[in-house]
Amino acid sequence: MKYHKIPDEAVRRLPIYLRGLLSLSEQERKKISSQRLADFLGVNHWQIRKDLSYFGGFGTPGTGYDIEKLIRQIRKILKLNVVHKAALVGVGNLGSAVLRYPGFRIYGFKIAAAFDNDPKKIGRKIANITIEGISNLHTLQKRKIDLGIITIPCEATQETFNKLITAGVKGVLSFSRCYKTGRKKAKVITIDIVMDLARLPYYIPTSQVAKV
Amino acid sequence: MKYHKIPDEAVRRLPIYLRGLLSLSEQERKKISSQRLADFLGVNHWQIRKDLSYFGGFGTPGTGYDIEKLIRQIRKILKLNVVHKAALVGVGNLGSAVLRYPGFRIYGFKIAAAFDNDPKKIGRKIANITIEGISNLHTLQKRKIDLGIITIPCEATQETFNKLITAGVKGVLSFSRCYKTGRKKAKVITIDIVMDLARLPYYIPTSQVAKV
Repeated sequence: MKYHKIPDEAVRRLPIYLRGLLSLSEQERKKISSQRLADFLGVNHWQIRKDLSYFGGFGTPGTGYDIEKLIRQIRKILKLNVVHKAALVGVGNLGSAVLRYPGFRIYGFKIAAAFDNDPKKIGRKIANITIEGISNLHTLQKRKIDLGIITIPCEATQETFNKLITAGVKGVLSFSRCYKTGRKKAKVITIDIVMDLARLPYYIPTSQVAKV
Repeated sequence: MKYHKIPDEAVRRLPIYLRGLLSLSEQERKKISSQRLADFLGVNHWQIRKDLSYFGGFGTPGTGYDIEKLIRQIRKILKLNVVHKAALVGVGNLGSAVLRYPGFRIYGFKIAAAFDNDPKKIGRKIANITIEGISNLHTLQKRKIDLGIITIPCEATQETFNKLITAGVKGVLSFSRCYKTGRKKAKVITIDIVMDLARLPYYIPTSQVAKV
């Protein structure tokens, strides 16, 4: 399987498929047609087939997808078949919510460290993780932590990002609203927790939109 | 302009374009080519042109997009040219982070109410919003609140969802990991705050993935 020239959009949807398949697996379903999987996920069935086709042939015409097998295949494509360790920087409300989030394990992630620059927070434990000072960031490589999660205010984003890269991190998930520039040494995915809200009014009939 | 048969994927990307354009506008940029806009956003320039083409013609060949004009056009398409009021249910770590989030206003949203079932939280203020008991949810329609944000544990999702619909809410952004069934009376967008993390390892060269 060759992975080049695959659209980022297809890669973006694979975790959505994985999440739905894991939920179906919990319900002890064994097989599912692409149409039913699409209905369950709220996407088009041709989209699922097209996205998966980039990575080879999956599913059997007439009987659909073997759920467990497809889970294994998607995990392998996304390199989630090994455990990845991540470090979180910024233990405020959002950082605490992320640390306590129960959904990491199903994707093969382990939050292995948390950092903050507030002396009052350093040494405290959240979800069994002891908060460390930012000055410890340089230890990440030795601890085999290759992913970073940034949950800090806008102004400190670039500096934290640079420190994570220097510490050997290869991928960063940033919840910060600020764009970062330069330093192409790591893949950065920026998410805005309220951006999805901006799609909602589109789907509400104009006659039903409350006049504020 | 007719809005039917437009792929959800195009609608999903419009807020991403809007966010980038707003950031460019803050930098006092006036015009931008689709190629430069694409580079700034980290997407393909043909994707931007294709997505916008569903809603009519934007931009001028040779000179590109007028940033302020495109912002107004995208706001109008997404019905973000009027202020929408939203209610948040579940004031835990994530709910508190969302309430304190500074990014709502740029999209035209106002969090107008927050609810929790914990008597200790009711009456407290976060980001100038007084937390109310769940029993007050029925007042939403009268208060012209037509969007809901769910930041509660899995098991209470369906019940809260039903209550929001009964209270007249037309769109729900759910941070809950649980799928909801039935009740097609509102558009529901479910987001998993860590799902984007699942895309990161894909982009890390296999030789650089730390063996844990």
